[in-house]
Amino acid sequence: MRRAHRIAAITKTLVERPNHVFAVGDFVELFDVARSTLSEDLAIIRATFNALNMGKIETIAGAVGGVRYVPHLTKDQVRTSIEEVCARLREPERILPGGLLYIDDLISSPSLLSTVGSIFATAFGDRDPEYVVTVETAGIPVALQVAHALDVPLVVVRRQSRPTEGPVLTMNFLSGSARQVETMSLSRRALPEGGRVLLIDDFMKAGGTLRGLSDLMGEFACTVVGKGVLIETGWPEEKLIDDHLPLVYLREVDVKEQKVTVEPADWILS
Amino acid sequence: MRRAHRIAAITKTLVERPNHVFAVGDFVELFDVARSTLSEDLAIIRATFNALNMGKIETIAGAVGGVRYVPHLTKDQVRTSIEEVCARLREPERILPGGLLYIDDLISSPSLLSTVGSIFATAFGDRDPEYVVTVETAGIPVALQVAHALDVPLVVVRRQSRPTEGPVLTMNFLSGSARQVETMSLSRRALPEGGRVLLIDDFMKAGGTLRGLSDLMGEFACTVVGKGVLIETGWPEEKLIDDHLPLVYLREVDVKEQKVTVEPADWILS
Repeated sequence: MRRAHRIAAITKTLVERPNHVFAVGDFVELFDVARSTLSEDLAIIRATFNALNMGKIETIAGAVGGVRYVPHLTKDQVRTSIEEVCARLREPERILPGGLLYIDDLISSPSLLSTVGSIFATAFGDRDPEYVVTVETAGIPVALQVAHALDVPLVVVRRQSRPTEGPVLTMNFLSGSARQVETMSLSRRALPEGGRVLLIDDFMKAGGTLRGLSDLMGEFACTVVGKGVLIETGWPEEKLIDDHLPLVYLREVDVKEQKVTVEPADWILS
Repeated sequence: MRRAHRIAAITKTLVERPNHVFAVGDFVELFDVARSTLSEDLAIIRATFNALNMGKIETIAGAVGGVRYVPHLTKDQVRTSIEEVCARLREPERILPGGLLYIDDLISSPSLLSTVGSIFATAFGDRDPEYVVTVETAGIPVALQVAHALDVPLVVVRRQSRPTEGPVLTMNFLSGSARQVETMSLSRRALPEGGRVLLIDDFMKAGGTLRGLSDLMGEFACTVVGKGVLIETGWPEEKLIDDHLPLVYLREVDVKEQKVTVEPADWILS
């Protein structure tokens, strides 16, 4: 195989599984080329990705030697993507009675979810999360794409436990907006003690769910290395957590004027 | 940019969004090369993917002209992947009291889910599904990766509807194994009439859920073009549906002997 062919095959392998470290030796063997030749192949892919802002190619030194593709969006790319999400959220036909917003179509688009996954991977990747944790149901697609971008397992906390989970730890928590006592539970097998977890959810009002998830992680002796939410609402003003990273800030839904006021989160605009 | 650089960039773009048609003209513009040069680039990627069984590169003729990456696993690749899943399912520590099996870690692995997504995309892609439909909760990660591989939206049917869904259609159905009446509901906005849908679930016993999902699709005047399940159990013997495609066949869980009898589905072995 010539260089161009090798580069197609290597790029495909790396991009299909972001953040996974592939042994350079496996490529050397597959293509039956010198290690120095393969290093040149990787240098070309790296230079291309750098030039076009397509993420990073990182080589890991050492006896074995590895290489991985690390998703990385520039600030401009993040801003453009999130501006597009905001534009779609402004569509007045999303407004439901009571000032609620229909967003299921957004969190059902695989390509949008991939982008969101890459944004959170860019933001939290250097904190080395070992698990992405969310709570059923709407957070799952977002969290899975974050887990995919980071190459770590997804852990889904349940509202109600199922018999196939084995022994579970169940916890009550106070939902921040409705001030109701709700329940979440997680299988004892789902997370080992001492794990580093990234919490991801689709929607946050007061932050009661993320607060509850954090407390649950404490029961598993896990460390929360970050908290990401796709959409945060402007109400209520007082939040139960303060160290989370939102992508979209939903300021107001005006039913009378049929107007949605929404913008990218401050850190994206700054 | 030289050929090797262009190939890295094009491969990355195509692989990151399977089954999405990209305009060839956009690449021509981005790299400022002749159309014939770009066709040669694409031919190299296509030849490489063919030679290494990495899926297909399809070009779409016409005034605009497009190109897409179509995931495609060979029979051997499918068999190897599913044999691996079976080997993991045989681990005796998965056996829970009552002969249940803990599988949450399997359906939480992004790389396994990607492979499963590609297998179902290979099996159902030529039926041109426009939506992938599943029911919460455990089916969501599997279904999302199928939707990603097919570049179509994911639609999640709920056990209980939420206020943010707008008007919903609610239906009772008979769960096949427990013979209980259960409920599923779907937002009227989630699916247009006449859509072509692919049903995906993680686990099937009698098939009551997939039977119910099919009936619900009828209420939306949608056509079910296929039904895929990751794991089908050998019990009960009588199934409520017969035109589904399982990947793994779970024959028996013997609690006393601590033995799981599981194998790839017949169509994979034949």
